[in-house]
Amino acid sequence: MVEVADGRVRAVIAAVAPAIDGGRYAVKRTAGEPLEVVAVCLVDGHDALRAMLRWRPEHAAQWQEVEMAPAGDDRWLARIIAAEPGRYRYGAAAWVDAFATWRREFARRQDAADLRLAAQTGAALIREAAARAGEAGTDADLADRDRLAAWAAALEGAVDPAALRAIALDEAAAAIAARHPDRRLEAVWPVELPLTVDRPRARFSSWYELFPRSAAPVAGRHGTLADALARLDYVAGLGFDVVYLPPVHPIGRLQRKGRNNSVPAQPGDVGSPWAIGSHEGGHKAVHPELGTLEDLRRLVARAHELGMEIALDIALQCAPDHPYVTAHPQWFRRRPDGTVQYAENPPKKYEDIYPFDFETPDWRALWNELESVFEFWIGQGVRIFRVDNPHTKPFGFWEWLIDRVGRAHPDVIFLAEAFTRPAVMHQLARLGFSQSYTYFAWRNTRHELTDYFTELAHGPGRDYLRPNAWPNTPDILTETLQYGGRAAFAARLVLAATLSANYGIYGPAFELMEHVAREPGSEEYLDSEKYQLRHWPIERPDSLAPLVTLINRIRRENPALQSNDGLSFFATDNEQLICYAKRCEEADNTIVVVVDLDPEHAHAGWIELDLRRLGIAEDLPYQMHDLLSGARYLWHGARNYVRLDPARMPAHVLRVRRRLRREQDFDYFL
Amino acid sequence: MVEVADGRVRAVIAAVAPAIDGGRYAVKRTAGEPLEVVAVCLVDGHDALRAMLRWRPEHAAQWQEVEMAPAGDDRWLARIIAAEPGRYRYGAAAWVDAFATWRREFARRQDAADLRLAAQTGAALIREAAARAGEAGTDADLADRDRLAAWAAALEGAVDPAALRAIALDEAAAAIAARHPDRRLEAVWPVELPLTVDRPRARFSSWYELFPRSAAPVAGRHGTLADALARLDYVAGLGFDVVYLPPVHPIGRLQRKGRNNSVPAQPGDVGSPWAIGSHEGGHKAVHPELGTLEDLRRLVARAHELGMEIALDIALQCAPDHPYVTAHPQWFRRRPDGTVQYAENPPKKYEDIYPFDFETPDWRALWNELESVFEFWIGQGVRIFRVDNPHTKPFGFWEWLIDRVGRAHPDVIFLAEAFTRPAVMHQLARLGFSQSYTYFAWRNTRHELTDYFTELAHGPGRDYLRPNAWPNTPDILTETLQYGGRAAFAARLVLAATLSANYGIYGPAFELMEHVAREPGSEEYLDSEKYQLRHWPIERPDSLAPLVTLINRIRRENPALQSNDGLSFFATDNEQLICYAKRCEEADNTIVVVVDLDPEHAHAGWIELDLRRLGIAEDLPYQMHDLLSGARYLWHGARNYVRLDPARMPAHVLRVRRRLRREQDFDYFL
Repeated sequence: MVEVADGRVRAVIAAVAPAIDGGRYAVKRTAGEPLEVVAVCLVDGHDALRAMLRWRPEHAAQWQEVEMAPAGDDRWLARIIAAEPGRYRYGAAAWVDAFATWRREFARRQDAADLRLAAQTGAALIREAAARAGEAGTDADLADRDRLAAWAAALEGAVDPAALRAIALDEAAAAIAARHPDRRLEAVWPVELPLTVDRPRARFSSWYELFPRSAAPVAGRHGTLADALARLDYVAGLGFDVVYLPPVHPIGRLQRKGRNNSVPAQPGDVGSPWAIGSHEGGHKAVHPELGTLEDLRRLVARAHELGMEIALDIALQCAPDHPYVTAHPQWFRRRPDGTVQYAENPPKKYEDIYPFDFETPDWRALWNELESVFEFWIGQGVRIFRVDNPHTKPFGFWEWLIDRVGRAHPDVIFLAEAFTRPAVMHQLARLGFSQSYTYFAWRNTRHELTDYFTELAHGPGRDYLRPNAWPNTPDILTETLQYGGRAAFAARLVLAATLSANYGIYGPAFELMEHVAREPGSEEYLDSEKYQLRHWPIERPDSLAPLVTLINRIRRENPALQSNDGLSFFATDNEQLICYAKRCEEADNTIVVVVDLDPEHAHAGWIELDLRRLGIAEDLPYQMHDLLSGARYLWHGARNYVRLDPARMPAHVLRVRRRLRREQDFDYFL
Repeated sequence: MVEVADGRVRAVIAAVAPAIDGGRYAVKRTAGEPLEVVAVCLVDGHDALRAMLRWRPEHAAQWQEVEMAPAGDDRWLARIIAAEPGRYRYGAAAWVDAFATWRREFARRQDAADLRLAAQTGAALIREAAARAGEAGTDADLADRDRLAAWAAALEGAVDPAALRAIALDEAAAAIAARHPDRRLEAVWPVELPLTVDRPRARFSSWYELFPRSAAPVAGRHGTLADALARLDYVAGLGFDVVYLPPVHPIGRLQRKGRNNSVPAQPGDVGSPWAIGSHEGGHKAVHPELGTLEDLRRLVARAHELGMEIALDIALQCAPDHPYVTAHPQWFRRRPDGTVQYAENPPKKYEDIYPFDFETPDWRALWNELESVFEFWIGQGVRIFRVDNPHTKPFGFWEWLIDRVGRAHPDVIFLAEAFTRPAVMHQLARLGFSQSYTYFAWRNTRHELTDYFTELAHGPGRDYLRPNAWPNTPDILTETLQYGGRAAFAARLVLAATLSANYGIYGPAFELMEHVAREPGSEEYLDSEKYQLRHWPIERPDSLAPLVTLINRIRRENPALQSNDGLSFFATDNEQLICYAKRCEEADNTIVVVVDLDPEHAHAGWIELDLRRLGIAEDLPYQMHDLLSGARYLWHGARNYVRLDPARMPAHVLRVRRRLRREQDFDYFL
């Protein structure tokens, strides 16, 4: 049954966007980033509407309002910018505005008798506005009241149509009346839509993954957190801002895996950092071979000094000798023979990993303990967590955890490592993860990249799923990198760093172009650091470090690359050439990227830009400044010729510089 | 704050579709028409899910359930068919099924010790299912209990891997266990989504609008409802099933409009039926010149005998002499001079129309009275209302009204006459109107028709906005019809009747090809029936009546044309040729339509069908039977040549007849 409280409410808000599942999940923005809200507002007949976007921090009682502007097709628009990370709510209100209706109709009226009668109607409406101003009662309101009363009197006193029109349509007076609308019959969007505002690094970040145990200055020695600290200058020099470490906890000894995932481990094998826990401690301890908690804090502090921060990997699973297994046997499932159920996906068995039984009746204690793991590391100064395989733990747990941690620490960022089906990745992003790994590693052709990044930037996830693109990870050495050589590494680096505002590499394997797989058809690295120490000759002269450094500088200097909103793809007549642009209108910053996707051959072709979309005048030349090579090209119009030789550099990263004045030097390009 | 009642609930329902605004408005179907529901159901890890679509009549306490089937990408599907019009609710439930998980993993296990342990786990699960069967307690359940207990025992007793596997994977036993799942930790979609089921005519109807006052057998006499009754045989002969009459109420005398909308009316001018009310009565009275209420009931009854029904036009507005104006002065707005506010859109004035003031404090009495108008005509046997300009009355009023009337009379159909902006039309459809007029009259080119009908059939309104396409109305004589001659009338008829399952014509103006506008640039008919009597020579030899009759027969005989779901458009290499198909899979009925959109010239070209979509084999010939001309063409493959000469007939309406056996006569075509 439709219940109607007051049938006189004629304004209708038919939709408010963005909204995730009608407000079930929060829209995400970062501090300083605008949220543009569109409301579809309707009224029967011809009356004038007014609409307000309203918003507030979640804990605040009072709404702030921004007047919405009509944008055609019954859509009303306004934008808000939250300056601080936190949880917010927003919505809309709309009402039929008798004063605005009167004024609009008055302007169209023609016959004199009609104008005189309409002036009486208007004077009455203005007196009502004056009364409301009087009730509001501040000095400004009382001044408004007096001016409105004078206006009404003037309107009542006039007779001549021209005078009537001049008085009635006075803009300044109308602005005063508009400050005191009659909102008694306003419609309010029934849901207070949630908005999560993260700090800017949730939107724009450059990650570098490294294994501290491989950071020793000499080959063969087990690296430590202190060695990782020494490596920070190198990483900062590359231009990264997030240094991500695999789990730093004690590694299980029972069922430990050996080199190249062999079973059983040989004496001296260091084991996988993801097999967490031993008698030396569990998820709140530091692996003794890496150092101490104090070393970790020092690492965090030093990263901070260098403008970076440490991200920790949280993998919610246990080695068989993790202290939880004996302290909380009820958190694990038993097999009929009484042993603890290890992870399995028959016929595969992962006997070195005990998953938690999230269906345990003791789930609340388990959840609280797992929350305390995050809180523990937050206590050490960590604010970014890369969560290992979140899709193998309950969705409801993550929603609860991220909500609690996020409320206590609005600066915490969670990256979901879920390489799984789209619906699962979207659900994790919807329930709160700040960033998500992507399928980028497996998107290689122009068609694949265009479809996928168009979907990421403009598809249904655009308001909640922030992609983080990685060309490689310790688990993913793609065929492209195995066989494409230096050009493939360079191209994949440029693609990741320019297609996605968040990106990362697993180094030094990446910049040293490590490319040998364990076996044909595998994406596992041979002699993977996951199971053994490696020594990385980071000073090798052929390292891609200079290109990495340059790309990261370009990202820092060009706001267009710090968001995915302004991404668009353009046609090329050579399928091996992909062309796209990112544009930041506020900063008037536009980057056009062209990449040769074929690491073996030079390719040339015509690209066709959408000049209007890029803010480039059709009839004026513009300069394309290649930020990789330094070369500058004078282009004109939409169609332009490019040629890329992967032997030299498989990409252009072109900054658009428009002429300020027609007959000036290039120095005057913006 | 995220509150968690039971953290062990691991199944997640991430989406249920269709749903209009998350369940704020009802999805629409007709009795016997399937509703296919898709739920996105997820669980962490690899466990097996089961999902149920649940539904019930709104007044029923008990849900009925249909098991959903996985359809890839975490989507689960099921369909329901409501046999009776009414209000329903639907939703979904999903749970992690330990038994199904066990069985799936058992099938993949390899080593013997593992199989033996897994058999113990399975036996325990089966015993739990047996216990649940025992609790359910019907005879069938108890039989299940015993068979499950025996199964568990057999499983516990086996040792040999082959025997274990044979017992564990017994299909029949698994089916029994599946009847008794453990649903204690199931997830339920939180919204009980509304579904409105109308009778089939809401989806498939053929309307004929006529003015009873022009139905007199002799020119110059005011026609009556009795004359309209005599005309019903003609309309039934044309094949229509809804006869729609403009308002039948007394016509106001004050401010009456004369012929061709002239002011003032001359003596003898009959006035506009939309200027409702005089001392003779208002919205519940019959215009004395048309006859009596008894005549109206006779008309309704006779239409029923002929397989048709009468639709009445309800226009919620008053002539100045409507009884409401004096009886309920508070329902009208006053001007400052004390006169009643007439309708206006400055500088235009409609002094013959007083709109209701829906912002009156007495709104509830007004709403109740207006509801009683509908109830009054329902009491006379009317079940279809064409609502005049609903977008000039509050949306909230219509939502309330349609809800109340619909609950009391689930067979009532409301057609919204709102030729206005898309958002407004969609809102009216969302809040409950069963059918909507469309922009069809102004969509002429291949591109326009393709875009618009693709949007109507497959766009966001597909689950709530049922289009009703009219080539003409008393208010709309398009340029196409003014200047296109017979071919334009024929083409527009075929387009309306095949693109839209609901369509209508305003006759006899349509079949007699009335085409002179009041003035150049106007879409008003010269000497419009809206303001004067007309006499229609329906027996004129050039009438389009035979084509209308044929088209309506084709619609009745081909289920594909009775819905818009199966509409798809195909490429043609001549822009003046539009080609599209409708397909009904259940009935294996496919209609392909080709129309020459240029009424002046013959056009030929190649069309390219999507054979897969039409269920036609790539490698077999098929027959195209032109239901308009009777011709039969043998086609093969996707590309085929067509030529249409509008001087003969501007369209093919082709029924696809596939061969049953390769070497048979055409008589064996299906």
